[in-house]
Amino acid sequence: MIGCYFSLDRMKQGTHLQVWFEFASTYSYPAVIRVEQLASLHGVPLNWEPFLLGPIFKSQGWSDSPFNIYPVKGHYMWRDLERICGELAIPFRRPSVFPRNGLLAARVCAQFKASVWLPAFIKAVYSANFAHDLDISQASVLAECLQQSGHEPRAILEQANSPAAKNALRNQTDRAITLGIFGAPTFVSAAELFWGNDRLDAAISWSKRGANTA
Amino acid sequence: MIGCYFSLDRMKQGTHLQVWFEFASTYSYPAVIRVEQLASLHGVPLNWEPFLLGPIFKSQGWSDSPFNIYPVKGHYMWRDLERICGELAIPFRRPSVFPRNGLLAARVCAQFKASVWLPAFIKAVYSANFAHDLDISQASVLAECLQQSGHEPRAILEQANSPAAKNALRNQTDRAITLGIFGAPTFVSAAELFWGNDRLDAAISWSKRGANTA
Repeated sequence: MIGCYFSLDRMKQGTHLQVWFEFASTYSYPAVIRVEQLASLHGVPLNWEPFLLGPIFKSQGWSDSPFNIYPVKGHYMWRDLERICGELAIPFRRPSVFPRNGLLAARVCAQFKASVWLPAFIKAVYSANFAHDLDISQASVLAECLQQSGHEPRAILEQANSPAAKNALRNQTDRAITLGIFGAPTFVSAAELFWGNDRLDAAISWSKRGANTA
Repeated sequence: MIGCYFSLDRMKQGTHLQVWFEFASTYSYPAVIRVEQLASLHGVPLNWEPFLLGPIFKSQGWSDSPFNIYPVKGHYMWRDLERICGELAIPFRRPSVFPRNGLLAARVCAQFKASVWLPAFIKAVYSANFAHDLDISQASVLAECLQQSGHEPRAILEQANSPAAKNALRNQTDRAITLGIFGAPTFVSAAELFWGNDRLDAAISWSKRGANTA
């Protein structure tokens, strides 16, 4: 009976939930790792939305992560993230370099936004950075992540360096700014913003409710 | 049987949880309103710890609330707070002035830290600001809050203006800085920090666990 209930529930598909992520963002890591399972459980379809925080931070006068600019806050964040990952049983190792440059990885995502293999790649990149302390700015590391998600990396990485991919990522960041996004992860459902890993459940509920009241 | 279980559970008192609050802090409002009930349910004793964010923000180069300095973030915060209060069924009206000056109210708290009437006063001041849009910098508004918590306000407000009270509040802010506090609310249990209304449940759990493993 429980199985039956879930099946019926899933048939009523929720409002699309946009997952805005930036590869350097620490709290995006636990959010990205668990969002698919949660969304699937509640019948909420996802749109993966890569963007860059750099230009947004720059417009606020920051040339580095606020966690580096304000070390007391940074110190807290690392401990908090460790606790969160521990609670969720998500592997975590503090990266030896922070923030890492996720530009090429983000261009892959912007260029191949709707590809079925993309979520696996995104999770592999986050795990490379936050579980295995690998330098995700390196094409060789991303090639490994692409291989993990079942793809021959060479052609994909070539396309990620194309003007089209660069433009696609710039457009994504412009869209993020237009939406009022100022940090990552941010979840957007029908123009309603939810900022942070802490708001993932609220965002899923909002999307689900949107479908039920539509 | 359930009643019996709760009674036994309460007998095992949790580690003291420090509740660090600043009257201008928006997310402190829902936290302060619900912390007593939660703590009591889990047998966690509370210490109320007033402090001022102003000196801490100044040391980060901010002369105003970051929600005013970064309006996009501020816009999100007000919507987020409205959603949170709605979810918790806590009355909320966006204050017409933000941030309001909570200096005198904080001095009352620093001077009368261990008084049994203090939690009622603190909740009354937060409600005055965030539910009734009253100017909590005014002694007349605080007098009303003291009366609500069962006290004749005149002597208390006089003492709150004494050098001893001013010094007590300065000491509190110095303690906050030493603990690594950078925002409000912050919950501290056995040197472990939990920042934000979002971490209240985790902080209560931590205090409870501390008692069980002691």
